[in-house]
Amino acid sequence: MKLKISASLNYRLPEPVDLMLQIEAANGHGQHVLESSLDFGAPDYMARVPAAEGLCEPIWLHHVAGTLHAEYRALVEVDRDAVDVRQLAAVPLHRLPAAAVPYLNESRYCPSNKFHAFVERRFRDHEGGAKIARMRDWIESRFTYVAGTSNVETGALDSFVERRGVCRDYAHVMIALARAAHIPARMASVYALGVDPQDFHAVAEVYLDGDWHMVDATGMTSPAETARICVGRDAADVAFLTAYREIAFVSQKVKVKRDD
Amino acid sequence: MKLKISASLNYRLPEPVDLMLQIEAANGHGQHVLESSLDFGAPDYMARVPAAEGLCEPIWLHHVAGTLHAEYRALVEVDRDAVDVRQLAAVPLHRLPAAAVPYLNESRYCPSNKFHAFVERRFRDHEGGAKIARMRDWIESRFTYVAGTSNVETGALDSFVERRGVCRDYAHVMIALARAAHIPARMASVYALGVDPQDFHAVAEVYLDGDWHMVDATGMTSPAETARICVGRDAADVAFLTAYREIAFVSQKVKVKRDD
Amino acid sequence: MKLKISASLNYRLPEPVDLMLQIEAANGHGQHVLESSLDFGAPDYMARVPAAEGLCEPIWLHHVAGTLHAEYRALVEVDRDAVDVRQLAAVPLHRLPAAAVPYLNESRYCPSNKFHAFVERRFRDHEGGAKIARMRDWIESRFTYVAGTSNVETGALDSFVERRGVCRDYAHVMIALARAAHIPARMASVYALGVDPQDFHAVAEVYLDGDWHMVDATGMTSPAETARICVGRDAADVAFLTAYREIAFVSQKVKVKRDD
Amino acid sequence: MKLKISASLNYRLPEPVDLMLQIEAANGHGQHVLESSLDFGAPDYMARVPAAEGLCEPIWLHHVAGTLHAEYRALVEVDRDAVDVRQLAAVPLHRLPAAAVPYLNESRYCPSNKFHAFVERRFRDHEGGAKIARMRDWIESRFTYVAGTSNVETGALDSFVERRGVCRDYAHVMIALARAAHIPARMASVYALGVDPQDFHAVAEVYLDGDWHMVDATGMTSPAETARICVGRDAADVAFLTAYREIAFVSQKVKVKRDD
Repeated sequence: MKLKISASLNYRLPEPVDLMLQIEAANGHGQHVLESSLDFGAPDYMARVPAAEGLCEPIWLHHVAGTLHAEYRALVEVDRDAVDVRQLAAVPLHRLPAAAVPYLNESRYCPSNKFHAFVERRFRDHEGGAKIARMRDWIESRFTYVAGTSNVETGALDSFVERRGVCRDYAHVMIALARAAHIPARMASVYALGVDPQDFHAVAEVYLDGDWHMVDATGMTSPAETARICVGRDAADVAFLTAYREIAFVSQKVKVKRDD
Repeated sequence: MKLKISASLNYRLPEPVDLMLQIEAANGHGQHVLESSLDFGAPDYMARVPAAEGLCEPIWLHHVAGTLHAEYRALVEVDRDAVDVRQLAAVPLHRLPAAAVPYLNESRYCPSNKFHAFVERRFRDHEGGAKIARMRDWIESRFTYVAGTSNVETGALDSFVERRGVCRDYAHVMIALARAAHIPARMASVYALGVDPQDFHAVAEVYLDGDWHMVDATGMTSPAETARICVGRDAADVAFLTAYREIAFVSQKVKVKRDD
Repeated sequence: MKLKISASLNYRLPEPVDLMLQIEAANGHGQHVLESSLDFGAPDYMARVPAAEGLCEPIWLHHVAGTLHAEYRALVEVDRDAVDVRQLAAVPLHRLPAAAVPYLNESRYCPSNKFHAFVERRFRDHEGGAKIARMRDWIESRFTYVAGTSNVETGALDSFVERRGVCRDYAHVMIALARAAHIPARMASVYALGVDPQDFHAVAEVYLDGDWHMVDATGMTSPAETARICVGRDAADVAFLTAYREIAFVSQKVKVKRDD
Repeated sequence: MKLKISASLNYRLPEPVDLMLQIEAANGHGQHVLESSLDFGAPDYMARVPAAEGLCEPIWLHHVAGTLHAEYRALVEVDRDAVDVRQLAAVPLHRLPAAAVPYLNESRYCPSNKFHAFVERRFRDHEGGAKIARMRDWIESRFTYVAGTSNVETGALDSFVERRGVCRDYAHVMIALARAAHIPARMASVYALGVDPQDFHAVAEVYLDGDWHMVDATGMTSPAETARICVGRDAADVAFLTAYREIAFVSQKVKVKRDD
């Protein structure tokens, strides 16, 4: 399946600022970037940082002034099997690769240890992928997708109690529950079909059966129609735009279409 | 300088449990493990996981029952220059290696973005290592080292307000302030001379001038007399003992001596 | 029913300190103090403050040094009907007395607004006292009473997620859920039969049908066997002992018996 | 001094809702309402609740549908002495009236106990009103008044670290510091000259020398030009508009002028 992706960012920069962008679809792990372009006009300085795990190359714009106008376009072939997560076995803790271990730990927005008792009681009848599927369904059926109710402070604890949020909040709760069951979990920022209204999207990824698998508790997207941008512990790691001073939002537009 | 290290852990395990230990001094980066031994009696299953960045090899004890009795002994040569942190230059953001970038982000115990205004106002007159030194001195002169006032929930925000804590709290505040100044910072668990009473210790590490440098805001230790165990975003990553079920503390003893 | 109550507090006071005690059973509202004595040895200065709502008279010990040794004994007749909370109607918001209104608001340990969506979804099929009874049962069946897992920082949000705690945590969750359903709720510190191990106890009180009614989500006590000490927004208001400097716990003993 | 006050609130109510308004200037304690009018069009049901301490009469609008359009106008004589807070003595804890005692306790947005060490160290050289004045100046000189950076979750802990906020945040920090010094402190919602842009305003009140005294750490207003609406533990108690379902902001306007 091919996804035709475009993202346009417009911000006003009251003073010169360093910016970090993570908006390019990654190459590898079930997806291939066939074509792509990234246009900034002419920033003073741009640097591309080769990333750990080959999943994302953050782009720095150094000391940019006036405006940021970024246009990203890509054609990405997604070749990801439609795995039934319920069939996947958990990896015993002592067999986890070292790179997966940190994703068992608590992170900025996912203080997962607090969820142990709830997870043990509510999901004890299933293991591995079946447990993950139950968690996903539990969240999807109980939460309401509402824009504007969460903010940069909102973590999995808040969202679990408030029973609402946007994609990042759903993913944070999913990650917290998975880690509380001792299954490594992380956040992926993605472009995906099915996101309504279209925007940058975030999903959880869980480590089962020797690999990472996307789980979207909002129910809006499927892995076969999703292109990964980058991954991290939670939203603190995968922001599409990080500004090292105050900047002002002007407009932003994301489009993801099937390219037949 | 050689450090003679011993650590003894005794826990009661009411039910079979998976344990992860991070108690071995790391090899490399200014330290060499000359001799070491680790004795558990005979656990059902032990696995050693080769770690990212070669800094720490977590050890898993799988399905251990009854008691944990671990004895670690090592002789470590520390060959770390006594760098004056004040002389070190900050690395421009767009020149940071990808592996250092995540250490700019907020983490479980270090929600650093909240500290921007304070850092900008209080430490604006200095840059790079000089700024770090001022932060370290600011913490050391204002905080009181008190055992028992912080717990597993206590983060940099609490400690900053409460002005007290133990080594991990000092390190969390140091890390939060450094990141708020856009200097990558992480936590290292260590064995060190000068810790009173002797115990596992934690210090901050900041990325300056192309390398990581230890900073101990408690003022108790110096890098030249410190052996690193492992590093991570904050205390969530570097626990010396992680149990995947309830366990009961019996006793614990750490000794670090100069070996002449 | 008569309750024979005794409470003994022993603390060490490293430096002179002001103390506030709230340990005397209140008079009125379904209970009558038949006999009581309170013995401190000879503190420098003791003041009794007539309290709002006639429910509790805080006692100040001014500038006490050395040790606190307090002995309280009382015989209290409890004459509280065994009301079936399920039969009680909610009071419409605009008919609430002014004194009950603040107990709709969020408080230190009960940030109740976050629970709106959960309460609306989970308990929508019942109103007034029937809703309260469902909440109480929901908590009792899902939470585990565990000493030592909560502390002075633990609020209803934490306890709701962690599904465990002691009496104050149960009461905080009960209060948060009630307020989220727009039913005024507060905390009462009490002496009660059934508390195991015997200690100071705390329960929720909800405003239904024109009066306050005790609800104990731990299921350990019943209103007919409970003597109220004082009431407040949450645990921040009803501590049995408040010290305005560091003091050290030595021993404490509470006994409540039926006096036939 | 006479203040001419007007407040206009316009909200859209997607479904029938109960509303509580606290927007009328109080009578007494240094201010006299000479004239006032409050116009809602014709709500289904309005109830006025006589309030505790005679300071505020909350108004309930029961089951209002469609829109809320409220117009409040008043002429208030303020006859409050320009007290120099630095001259006021603290009241010894055991001499505090019972009604002031709860304002020593932690509240929703003011977890004051955490500030003990900071307050003891930073303000130890002054007592009573002189200490309060130092706290006020400390906040005013270090904080930046910025709209839009705080929200309904923001408490004194956040604001203390972030060093910025709006009037309620300044007041919360002021209250937290005062309580940490064992001086009762509360929040007053007010109409005041000097608020720029004009809006509902909030200030701290501290209990010194036998009475409550306004302290505005933003430095924008003075007690002699301020009309109190109501008081409470913190912002959780003094909201000008509380809606018991979702409502939508349309417009709002507050005007306060000197009437010569």
